[in-house]
Amino acid sequence: MKKEVITPWEISGEINYSKLKEQFGTQLIPENLRKKIGDIHPLIRRGIYFSHRNFDSWLKDAESGKKVSILTGRGPSEKMHLGHLMPFLAAKSLQEKYNCNVYIPISEDEKFFVKKSLSFDKAKEFADENILDLIALGFKPSKTFIIKDFSYPKVYEYSSKIAKLITYSEAKAVFGLKPESNVGWSFYPAVQAFHILMPQFIEGPHKTLVPVGIDQDPFIRLTRDISEHSTINLNKPCAIHSKFLPSLKGSTKMSSSDESEANLIYLSDSPSEVKRKINKYAFSGGRDTLEEHRKKGGNPDVDIPFQYLKMLFEPDDKKLEEIYNKYKSGELLSGELKKITIGKINSFLKEHQMKRKSSKKQLKKFMLS
Amino acid sequence: MKKEVITPWEISGEINYSKLKEQFGTQLIPENLRKKIGDIHPLIRRGIYFSHRNFDSWLKDAESGKKVSILTGRGPSEKMHLGHLMPFLAAKSLQEKYNCNVYIPISEDEKFFVKKSLSFDKAKEFADENILDLIALGFKPSKTFIIKDFSYPKVYEYSSKIAKLITYSEAKAVFGLKPESNVGWSFYPAVQAFHILMPQFIEGPHKTLVPVGIDQDPFIRLTRDISEHSTINLNKPCAIHSKFLPSLKGSTKMSSSDESEANLIYLSDSPSEVKRKINKYAFSGGRDTLEEHRKKGGNPDVDIPFQYLKMLFEPDDKKLEEIYNKYKSGELLSGELKKITIGKINSFLKEHQMKRKSSKKQLKKFMLS
Repeated sequence: MKKEVITPWEISGEINYSKLKEQFGTQLIPENLRKKIGDIHPLIRRGIYFSHRNFDSWLKDAESGKKVSILTGRGPSEKMHLGHLMPFLAAKSLQEKYNCNVYIPISEDEKFFVKKSLSFDKAKEFADENILDLIALGFKPSKTFIIKDFSYPKVYEYSSKIAKLITYSEAKAVFGLKPESNVGWSFYPAVQAFHILMPQFIEGPHKTLVPVGIDQDPFIRLTRDISEHSTINLNKPCAIHSKFLPSLKGSTKMSSSDESEANLIYLSDSPSEVKRKINKYAFSGGRDTLEEHRKKGGNPDVDIPFQYLKMLFEPDDKKLEEIYNKYKSGELLSGELKKITIGKINSFLKEHQMKRKSSKKQLKKFMLS
Repeated sequence: MKKEVITPWEISGEINYSKLKEQFGTQLIPENLRKKIGDIHPLIRRGIYFSHRNFDSWLKDAESGKKVSILTGRGPSEKMHLGHLMPFLAAKSLQEKYNCNVYIPISEDEKFFVKKSLSFDKAKEFADENILDLIALGFKPSKTFIIKDFSYPKVYEYSSKIAKLITYSEAKAVFGLKPESNVGWSFYPAVQAFHILMPQFIEGPHKTLVPVGIDQDPFIRLTRDISEHSTINLNKPCAIHSKFLPSLKGSTKMSSSDESEANLIYLSDSPSEVKRKINKYAFSGGRDTLEEHRKKGGNPDVDIPFQYLKMLFEPDDKKLEEIYNKYKSGELLSGELKKITIGKINSFLKEHQMKRKSSKKQLKKFMLS
């Protein structure tokens, strides 16, 4: 087994999520809390969001009708893939349930600073493209606020207020800064902390929730450490932390930076591309031969198409259980399981791509000015 | 003699300006260039601005009617003093002569980052107060553009473009960053380079001139190094470098950070305060006794009241020479020289304070939005 490495800028090896929770000092989301929420996106219901900071207190305010909000940002990339959906689908589901505001800061600045070859204009273009995808996910226009770091006029002022509280040494430790890193990158920790606190900067102190991959928790922790400082005077942000959506070949995290394109499914992929990628690349929990599979059954727990159904594409718990059992017993073949997953992904993408076409028209409703 | 220390963040000891010019690698402004300019503020005419980078090429464009501009910023402090006037009076005089745009960025961010005890609100308040002083100096409203870093919406976007070209190591060397310095300070070098390039960011490439104290030249050099980079594509800024206005007691530079209030003359000082300060504190080049002074004469070259006349308050070269000779011969006593200087300063401040009262009304004309 490869050594597990998890930092906000590197993920490798096989991940032991419960050890990770200890490493980051967060709490497991208890079963009874999940049950109490009831009808919610499978990502939360099924424990893909497995760890948290003060999610219980956020829920308490949400359920008692107090003002709560959600914050989930995006560092824009050329094309969004399935792995990028996770925090947004969780946020949208919570917005629907608790009728709360969702803030979405787009950090084209981060990508521009960190990616050596990324030009300024390209970084801005990616931001605009990704925003169209986010709008297509169906957030409530009147309760969803998107900003771009290079356009929202308050970014520098608010981030500067925070920047005074973060020393270079602290930023270096959390963000992996090097002497040869540019000074935009040095400042970015303050911008990110501003993002996390943005709902409170704009609406005043209240409970905010950040759905985020567990690897991003150091940023949450840094922000929690400064949020109650006398010059800021806001509540500590709450967070829920997810496991990673695995790549097609089964590596820990679907990620454009680590994987060849063949291992990712993009939101812009055509039905035939999805079919080809799943059939050709998706790691299967099936047996080597048909006979062996029928006899011994497959392993849905390592099967990537099954993981995609469980995490994103089969909301019906009973149906999912049925698929699980049939695959495990050998009744369902790997090819058949892949076919089910291909169908589910393609119907999701068909609707997404259709909705995305009218995103531009809705842009004004979503952009905070 | 104390060891000379000149960095953008520390000035101490006695300054050898011609050695300094060598240390910074700039050019002396030649006598014939000053003569060629003709009627201009004494600061330039009398060689207080003694060193330059490409001032000749800026002048060439200015005189041939090509677009040129001037940039001079201000890190706002509680109250402005006489020492702060120098770049602005030079800029104003050049604006009058060449009818060019003057850009004035106000860096309340810098002061906020660097001064531990300075609050966010105070930093912004100082910016607003200092702007009223700057407007009172009489720049042309239609050709003068003031921005505040926390308000002008493009600061972060433009500075970020530059930030990608400055590594933390470089910024550390030029700005004296320490690991315990905050990340706002790390980023500020990019904001300052944006300031210096601001006229070109806004109007496109052209020759710009920065009148600045010689200690600030490392910032000019850093900006010149990046201005022609393919992602920026602007002209290298030109610069003229001044000596420092000495403090009342005769130390190298009138500066709020190094001096007790008694050693500074503020733009808000009353006539009686000015009189008291000059009489009590101003270092005199006179002799110990009246008899000795009459016999051997005074030394105008070290006399602070004379320096103030020469640098700021006696524009008439003949009158200044007369005072010089009379003081040197012993005909003019130290008390008389002080009286002349007090009168000149007070008549300047009277007009300034009167004009400042109507600055607020003109604010909109000067602020770039």
